[in-house]
Amino acid sequence: MSTPDSSGLAPGAMLGILGGGQLARMLALAAADLGIRAHIFAPEPDSPAFDVAARHTVGDYEDEAALARFADAVDVVTYEFENVPAATAAFLAARTPLHPGARALAVTQDRLSEKSFVAELGLAVAPFRAVDSLADLKAAVADLGRPSILKTRRFGYDGKGQVKIAAGSDLAEAYEAIGHFSAILEGFVPFTREVSVVAARGADGAFAAFDVCENEHRDHILAFTRVPAQLSPKTGEAAIAAARRIGDALGYIGVFAVEMFVVGEGAAERVIVNEIAPRVHNSGHWTSEGAQTSQFHQHVRAVCGFPLGSATRRGRVEMENLIGVAALRWRDLLAEPGAHLHLYGKRDARPGRKMGHVTRVTPEKA
Amino acid sequence: MSTPDSSGLAPGAMLGILGGGQLARMLALAAADLGIRAHIFAPEPDSPAFDVAARHTVGDYEDEAALARFADAVDVVTYEFENVPAATAAFLAARTPLHPGARALAVTQDRLSEKSFVAELGLAVAPFRAVDSLADLKAAVADLGRPSILKTRRFGYDGKGQVKIAAGSDLAEAYEAIGHFSAILEGFVPFTREVSVVAARGADGAFAAFDVCENEHRDHILAFTRVPAQLSPKTGEAAIAAARRIGDALGYIGVFAVEMFVVGEGAAERVIVNEIAPRVHNSGHWTSEGAQTSQFHQHVRAVCGFPLGSATRRGRVEMENLIGVAALRWRDLLAEPGAHLHLYGKRDARPGRKMGHVTRVTPEKA
Repeated sequence: MSTPDSSGLAPGAMLGILGGGQLARMLALAAADLGIRAHIFAPEPDSPAFDVAARHTVGDYEDEAALARFADAVDVVTYEFENVPAATAAFLAARTPLHPGARALAVTQDRLSEKSFVAELGLAVAPFRAVDSLADLKAAVADLGRPSILKTRRFGYDGKGQVKIAAGSDLAEAYEAIGHFSAILEGFVPFTREVSVVAARGADGAFAAFDVCENEHRDHILAFTRVPAQLSPKTGEAAIAAARRIGDALGYIGVFAVEMFVVGEGAAERVIVNEIAPRVHNSGHWTSEGAQTSQFHQHVRAVCGFPLGSATRRGRVEMENLIGVAALRWRDLLAEPGAHLHLYGKRDARPGRKMGHVTRVTPEKA
Repeated sequence: MSTPDSSGLAPGAMLGILGGGQLARMLALAAADLGIRAHIFAPEPDSPAFDVAARHTVGDYEDEAALARFADAVDVVTYEFENVPAATAAFLAARTPLHPGARALAVTQDRLSEKSFVAELGLAVAPFRAVDSLADLKAAVADLGRPSILKTRRFGYDGKGQVKIAAGSDLAEAYEAIGHFSAILEGFVPFTREVSVVAARGADGAFAAFDVCENEHRDHILAFTRVPAQLSPKTGEAAIAAARRIGDALGYIGVFAVEMFVVGEGAAERVIVNEIAPRVHNSGHWTSEGAQTSQFHQHVRAVCGFPLGSATRRGRVEMENLIGVAALRWRDLLAEPGAHLHLYGKRDARPGRKMGHVTRVTPEKA
């Protein structure tokens, strides 16, 4: 619609998105608000994001011919998931801007490099040891004690690829359970709550964090996010400072989430970094109605080189995930005053499947 | 996603929309939030709504083969413009639910039947006379005086198809100017402001009006909407009651707008109905950020048979239309704190073309 300046695109541009799930879908919807068209690249022919995108490609992430055509057809590429193969990212980045960049993917795809990276920044992480054999595991458990958690280095999400090492756990069985993959053992963190910082970093280094939110998991899947988190102002500031540190160190462009554990109380309260997600994140869904700019709009702004929007919160917010059959409550949720229903257009309400979410915003007194 | 009950559809349904402009686009985006897919039917191959819809058909509104395929492929049909040909509406309504219904179209497509309908409900309208010849026009001007306005009965919008009859106007020239079409002459209304009521009526007769808004036109095109309108509470209630009366009398399902003139001051202040739009309306764009439920979500809820959402306002709101090159200010608007930019994905910023809009919400003190 006008000549883009050196730092960014203009409305009318085509945003390429790897992945066709609900995050890609909500990114495409936000892009449309800004006059940006979306081209979704995903292997599944019934990807929910296809329904709201100007173009889509059904293709494997290893299909270089399809990737090359995709790169030619878009102005910038982003993704909805951190497990984009490194070769795919490199192939695309050689042809078109890729945000967030390859370094963010490399660091966050591997729990060992992620933990090492965070620790090297001087931020607190759970104690950890690399585990590449049963012998490693035995040594690590001897070091870190029980309980502790054995996690595959790659491809874990929603509690998959993890096994708890409890007092009576057999270590050979545990190593078997994660399929002999390269792993890390993490020492137990006696946390009182789980929080996350969802934040954006612009191409110009600008930084905007949403308020720290508090997450409640059930069966290892996020069930509720509530904002603001119950934290001392000092701990909240430290959490946001940690996210900023991470974003700066990665030269990050886009929205990312840093999941943290809260340990200690009163003056001893502090956060321990658990995981970095180089993408929009389920714990940021509350921003759609709960913040001046949603995480999806913010990510589109950042990856297109537009100015970041205000991350100011609009009130006290609760986000409830609708998992599996919980989405069948849609009619009641539509009738609930003040509830905002978001459904992802998935056909089958399978157990454990994220079908939608609801936000509830309660204005705060000035 | 579940069996629809007799009154409505379920998420996963396909909503057919006639027309592919910005209203259809914003309806499709709202539908996506509720897990409803959109199928757009429009004659223009580069319709902005195509970019956000699951399916689209490029076809003429008179192409019965294309309309039949469209009707078979959707669960309900709605439209973004009131000039849907009567034959098209009848053809579709015989095959699939059409909301709002044929009666709403018939009444509002023709200024004479619209004015007569409103007057018969006992609501105030400008004095009017049917004009089908120059002789009619002369008699009507003798009756209603000057200034007055000659308007074609059909296909007028944004001031098109209208000519003012001023003190020195030549009547033959005026009749020529509107192309000898069937017309009406409207007497001059000395209004102090223009307001509109945007409201929804559900399949069950439920009614939910957004707060009365005030409209500022420039060159006959809406430039700004501000909410709340500066009206006495009594006049505001009367405006909403008038809209409700109209919706009930039409057996209306969906969102509609009633444009009104405000005349008189103090105790003499009252509203005069100007025009009914059987669709979402530009003067309702403020609801996207300014109300609990946007007009687009509300319309989707109504035509799908879902419960209406809350129409509660979130603060003082201003909506600014971006006409033509005004949209080139997009980068400044993205950087403006609290401004919400909406662009329609149109490629050329031609003069008079609605390219996007901005909303600004200022929270009110409790």
